[in-house]
Amino acid sequence: MRYRDSGVDIDRANEIVRGIARLAPPTWGPRVLSRIGNFGGLFDARDLGSAPVLVCSIDGVGTKTQVATLAQRFGGLGTDIVHHSVNDILVQGARPLLFLDYLAASKLDERIVLEIVEGMALACAAHRCALLGGETAEMPGTYTTGDYDVVGCIVGVAERDLMLTGDAVRVGDEVWGLPSSGLHTNGFSLARRVLFDAAGLQLDSRPDGLEGSLADALLAPHRSYFEPLWPLLEAKRLHALVHITGGGFDDNIPRVLPEGCAVEIDPNSWTIPALFELIQRSGNVPHDEMRRVFNLGLGMLALLDPEESRALQRRCPEARRIGRVIAGERTVHFLD
Amino acid sequence: MRYRDSGVDIDRANEIVRGIARLAPPTWGPRVLSRIGNFGGLFDARDLGSAPVLVCSIDGVGTKTQVATLAQRFGGLGTDIVHHSVNDILVQGARPLLFLDYLAASKLDERIVLEIVEGMALACAAHRCALLGGETAEMPGTYTTGDYDVVGCIVGVAERDLMLTGDAVRVGDEVWGLPSSGLHTNGFSLARRVLFDAAGLQLDSRPDGLEGSLADALLAPHRSYFEPLWPLLEAKRLHALVHITGGGFDDNIPRVLPEGCAVEIDPNSWTIPALFELIQRSGNVPHDEMRRVFNLGLGMLALLDPEESRALQRRCPEARRIGRVIAGERTVHFLD
Repeated sequence: MRYRDSGVDIDRANEIVRGIARLAPPTWGPRVLSRIGNFGGLFDARDLGSAPVLVCSIDGVGTKTQVATLAQRFGGLGTDIVHHSVNDILVQGARPLLFLDYLAASKLDERIVLEIVEGMALACAAHRCALLGGETAEMPGTYTTGDYDVVGCIVGVAERDLMLTGDAVRVGDEVWGLPSSGLHTNGFSLARRVLFDAAGLQLDSRPDGLEGSLADALLAPHRSYFEPLWPLLEAKRLHALVHITGGGFDDNIPRVLPEGCAVEIDPNSWTIPALFELIQRSGNVPHDEMRRVFNLGLGMLALLDPEESRALQRRCPEARRIGRVIAGERTVHFLD
Repeated sequence: MRYRDSGVDIDRANEIVRGIARLAPPTWGPRVLSRIGNFGGLFDARDLGSAPVLVCSIDGVGTKTQVATLAQRFGGLGTDIVHHSVNDILVQGARPLLFLDYLAASKLDERIVLEIVEGMALACAAHRCALLGGETAEMPGTYTTGDYDVVGCIVGVAERDLMLTGDAVRVGDEVWGLPSSGLHTNGFSLARRVLFDAAGLQLDSRPDGLEGSLADALLAPHRSYFEPLWPLLEAKRLHALVHITGGGFDDNIPRVLPEGCAVEIDPNSWTIPALFELIQRSGNVPHDEMRRVFNLGLGMLALLDPEESRALQRRCPEARRIGRVIAGERTVHFLD
């Protein structure tokens, strides 16, 4: 018996690694000292700042992969995980340095792996982030047939005095919301259950209010907020940022609230996109559950002094003021 | 409909995060600036050396998880992924700084997750490595019922002039092997196929030559070579290290060989442990395939000047000289 016979093909895996080896180097820049094939990726860490803090996060895209598998459209997943990761460290005041990915499936399809990694490489390059390494794993029996898990680990750097910890938030701050591109990478298990099972929709359905097909809406890549927000962050114009991911508004906002502060949100201050309305209606999902699972059209919140709101609007004309910081105990109140 | 109804329970997930929150802080040390609940982990990167290089790796434990699931013994998987990762950056000359984990399953069982993370935390603490962050994901439909994927990302640091790149390797160097504790984290798909399906063995079988049960042998945690090898590395006594992981001897040794060098190995220079003999015999696995898939009892190789071999033996009395570096084109020759 050979390894192949047990469902793992090292030659095919090596073929895939060679394909990836063409995609990563354009993202590297002068700090990457390794070459493909090294056991670990090497990143020159001299002169990262006067008081550099590494900010690190690991995450996956969740069951968005299952929609990608159904639609056989995988490229967006690479963008998804990089943008998700960039946002997760941006909210601490960090810019990305390097990214490592992990792709696993029951059986790896070279075309699919390269489609995903190409999406990652483009997203990394756009953020001057080195795609430093990765791992592809074939795990017959652990993964269901045809589906992938897409995981990424990001390392960024923040200057200690630019770090966002939430300590700067104070009563009277305004809360602004920046539009999302869709579900981003959260709530897919519920969305699939509601849309496909309960409402009987198909990937190519075109429900009222959506610009394209349901597949287009569901697979829209996670938006990165780095480009509009980084200059504001460097200029110390922000008190806190909140990435609305798993746990929605209710679980994520308190992560940046200091003692004595709460947030009040007016749900009529922005228009909830049609995709979320469709999910709520089709699944009869309670309002409080919607707010805890989905971003409802706002993927990033900025908490800032009212005097800084004009600077935010200049950088992000689509941003909406949705609430304010009030006295309270690290909770979120929805008006109405 | 609520999120729970689609197979994802945020409350249970939060419960698990609270459990993890008790395990990670003891590993942190003075450089970790974050607290549990931050979006990213924060690690003070001042004064990491005069020319620090970050060395990063991401990997999983593969289908060893399936044996753990069968045996319902999960703690070793946490040790496995940390030790695997530590070894992967050690071979580049790095000591670990921080580790992030990703655990995913169809449905997360709190007891199992905490067992795995506890193993990670202990292994991290033993290496003065901060368990800085992690993610747990429930992905019904992507993962098969009951099985887990266990992934880790490590970031270490090497002083630039202590980095091992393989450039120091020269003809005449000796190749020494350090004992493994078993399969470590590679070749499990083939091993399971051979031992359980072809040979009809059970987890509690006690084949000749094994000290305990088959489950004990298969689940023995991946050995870390940090403690014996780090002092030799700091003293510049090593030319290269090779972590024998996926791809075995044939694919891993060439990763550290410079142009003009090959390696000759005498397979009679060490005793192949009974577990590997059992796999080879039961599955009628060809010798060349065994060498490409398994570590055959040697989890780490050290390439060094013959004059340094006594220093190695003092640190690792179990090490065996198994071959030498000869002129050639980055290949591996087995004698006999």
